[in-house]
Amino acid sequence: MSDDAAQSNDRRYVAKTRLEAFSDGVFAIAITLLVLDLAIGHAGSPLHRVLDAWPFYLAYIVSFLTIGAAWLAHLAITDRLTKADGVLLRLNLLLLLLVSVLPFPTRLVAEGIHSESGERVFVTMYGLTLLAIRIALFALDEYCRREHLYAPGEGKEEQRERKALLPIVAGYVVAIPIGIALPAVAVGLYCALALYIVIPFDALGRVLFNRP
Amino acid sequence: MSDDAAQSNDRRYVAKTRLEAFSDGVFAIAITLLVLDLAIGHAGSPLHRVLDAWPFYLAYIVSFLTIGAAWLAHLAITDRLTKADGVLLRLNLLLLLLVSVLPFPTRLVAEGIHSESGERVFVTMYGLTLLAIRIALFALDEYCRREHLYAPGEGKEEQRERKALLPIVAGYVVAIPIGIALPAVAVGLYCALALYIVIPFDALGRVLFNRP
Amino acid sequence: MSDDAAQSNDRRYVAKTRLEAFSDGVFAIAITLLVLDLAIGHAGSPLHRVLDAWPFYLAYIVSFLTIGAAWLAHLAITDRLTKADGVLLRLNLLLLLLVSVLPFPTRLVAEGIHSESGERVFVTMYGLTLLAIRIALFALDEYCRREHLYAPGEGKEEQRERKALLPIVAGYVVAIPIGIALPAVAVGLYCALALYIVIPFDALGRVLFNRP
Amino acid sequence: MSDDAAQSNDRRYVAKTRLEAFSDGVFAIAITLLVLDLAIGHAGSPLHRVLDAWPFYLAYIVSFLTIGAAWLAHLAITDRLTKADGVLLRLNLLLLLLVSVLPFPTRLVAEGIHSESGERVFVTMYGLTLLAIRIALFALDEYCRREHLYAPGEGKEEQRERKALLPIVAGYVVAIPIGIALPAVAVGLYCALALYIVIPFDALGRVLFNRP
Repeated sequence: MSDDAAQSNDRRYVAKTRLEAFSDGVFAIAITLLVLDLAIGHAGSPLHRVLDAWPFYLAYIVSFLTIGAAWLAHLAITDRLTKADGVLLRLNLLLLLLVSVLPFPTRLVAEGIHSESGERVFVTMYGLTLLAIRIALFALDEYCRREHLYAPGEGKEEQRERKALLPIVAGYVVAIPIGIALPAVAVGLYCALALYIVIPFDALGRVLFNRP
Repeated sequence: MSDDAAQSNDRRYVAKTRLEAFSDGVFAIAITLLVLDLAIGHAGSPLHRVLDAWPFYLAYIVSFLTIGAAWLAHLAITDRLTKADGVLLRLNLLLLLLVSVLPFPTRLVAEGIHSESGERVFVTMYGLTLLAIRIALFALDEYCRREHLYAPGEGKEEQRERKALLPIVAGYVVAIPIGIALPAVAVGLYCALALYIVIPFDALGRVLFNRP
Repeated sequence: MSDDAAQSNDRRYVAKTRLEAFSDGVFAIAITLLVLDLAIGHAGSPLHRVLDAWPFYLAYIVSFLTIGAAWLAHLAITDRLTKADGVLLRLNLLLLLLVSVLPFPTRLVAEGIHSESGERVFVTMYGLTLLAIRIALFALDEYCRREHLYAPGEGKEEQRERKALLPIVAGYVVAIPIGIALPAVAVGLYCALALYIVIPFDALGRVLFNRP
Repeated sequence: MSDDAAQSNDRRYVAKTRLEAFSDGVFAIAITLLVLDLAIGHAGSPLHRVLDAWPFYLAYIVSFLTIGAAWLAHLAITDRLTKADGVLLRLNLLLLLLVSVLPFPTRLVAEGIHSESGERVFVTMYGLTLLAIRIALFALDEYCRREHLYAPGEGKEEQRERKALLPIVAGYVVAIPIGIALPAVAVGLYCALALYIVIPFDALGRVLFNRP
């Protein structure tokens, strides 16, 4: 089609500043709203009430780390971005939808951990949301790569994200079906995956072993 | 009046950065607060409880997409803005009032969808809020145009917004009275309208058909 | 004291960007959190339930406009700011404390409007918070003026804020004692005061009468 | 190891703007969410209900001042920052985790202040969170110092933070065990510590005594 090239030239690239500011806002709010669902029961001694609420703390930590890790990945993507087009803004909205909905399955997992049958359904929903966030981040990265929206040169952080993608997705694909049989084990695996993404092992190694 | 010209010259144009930052904040918070009203019932098996909450998911999606679409339109407006005056700041506050109040009718729609009579009132309130957001965006755009606050040249995204305005307003004007008789149909129409605004059909077509 | 001058030179001026970003965040969140307290009762027909909740809407509007007006005044202050020192950051924190606490008396006013005796106490608390926000804004402006933190030249918006200060404070000083006898009247006065601050009368007059 | 230097060169330094924007968001949201837990009881006259809620106000003030003080310390750190690496981003996430979790122990302290045994556990949790925030800020500062991420020259605000660190940590170390025996006294001490961090005594002295 003859007007395709014209259309292509016509596409306007908006400043990426607003994309970053809006995304930072949604990430920051979603990660902070998690605290509203931290609660303790009413029965027993105060210490027991605090300790019995461990599923809430675990779900809080996993979701906090997952949103934190998504923010780090988002930062690695937008850091190299030279411009943003309309499709990118909309793909980004999809990612933010998944990030901002996370407090909902988090609450369900925390509340349902004592009733075994409920837990299965909720932990599966939770795992699927975590996986969807990772896939949306991958789609964002792929789109920027294909549409040449990136500045040339790939930094350490991007290589890290790229190398980590396959093990992370594999981790979710293994953990989600496990959650149907053993929900608590799956939540443990989600926690391990979030820690694996967030902890900077190479930097830790450098600090612990290579420096006097 | 003789001091009119002086007054006109005197009008100070503030930086648009703060306008953008504050608006991004309100958009980001309103879109993320929607998650607080996602909830499931207490009766039935876990899977049924999750599935029975579909009106909450539908209302969530419609409101998320509507706020997301309003943010995209706001971005298209402020992107071309060269300066902001006091009236623009206040018109913008009116838009933010409507955006930030949206979680309230969203909650009413989601809760009322099972009781037919309630639904009618709530769905009408909801539709009127969605329409009011679109009108406030139009007023903002018109004001910037009339007061020559825009940089010359209109991008793809602005043309898109302009062309989409009439069908969107027409859509709401049709859907709101339908909601009095058939509330669920109206909510479906609001969802279709939000998708129509957000989905980049031309870019999708380009990606799906024109590229090898 | 001899080290006073040295201390004065030593005082470091931090960038005002962070001050603006953090303040914008708090203003945006406080103004958006107000929606969480919008609620309707459970008795009566849906339409009556919606209409009976008018005190919630009134309190919402007054608080939204008051925070919006405070943001506009804050914008007029920081717009002229050339630098920020430690004292300014702390005075600003005090203002943000008052702004972010406003949803609390707002909720009390909305809930208490049906019980006459409760209303008196809550409306007085509310009025005192509104007055305290205005005083904190005045203190911020005064500090910047005395410490020469402003760029030279005063714009239209600053003159507007300056001229409006006395009538606003006088309005609160009159409305607060009225609230002890006639709480509903005081809330109406707070609404009128907020509208008086936010509505750009001169610009409206210009648009309505002086332009063809 | 030979590839250590290469690895070191390879480490990419991201812009600090995003770090600041995301952190400002989390600080602003955490400090504003505190208002959601302000509540008054249902028994007694309105005035008594408002006055009886003093533990909520006290906990609100202490947490607001502590987050405000943490924001000031964060500002002093990032103000001198020339670049941010991956480890810094992750240390910062740890600080934000502690800041954003603070509304949870705040709520427990406010609710538990009437039941003596509960108060002990909750006040201890609260104190440990406050101490952990201070330690995370110290770790952030230390990391920036060791990795030479700071611009040369130390301002007044940084010296202030450095000098205040030891008395603050000592204050928490004394107050936390006191809270096991006398919880209300410990909360009073936390309030005094927060005021000690936030109030600019030297500037106050300058304004009150040295200026005509």
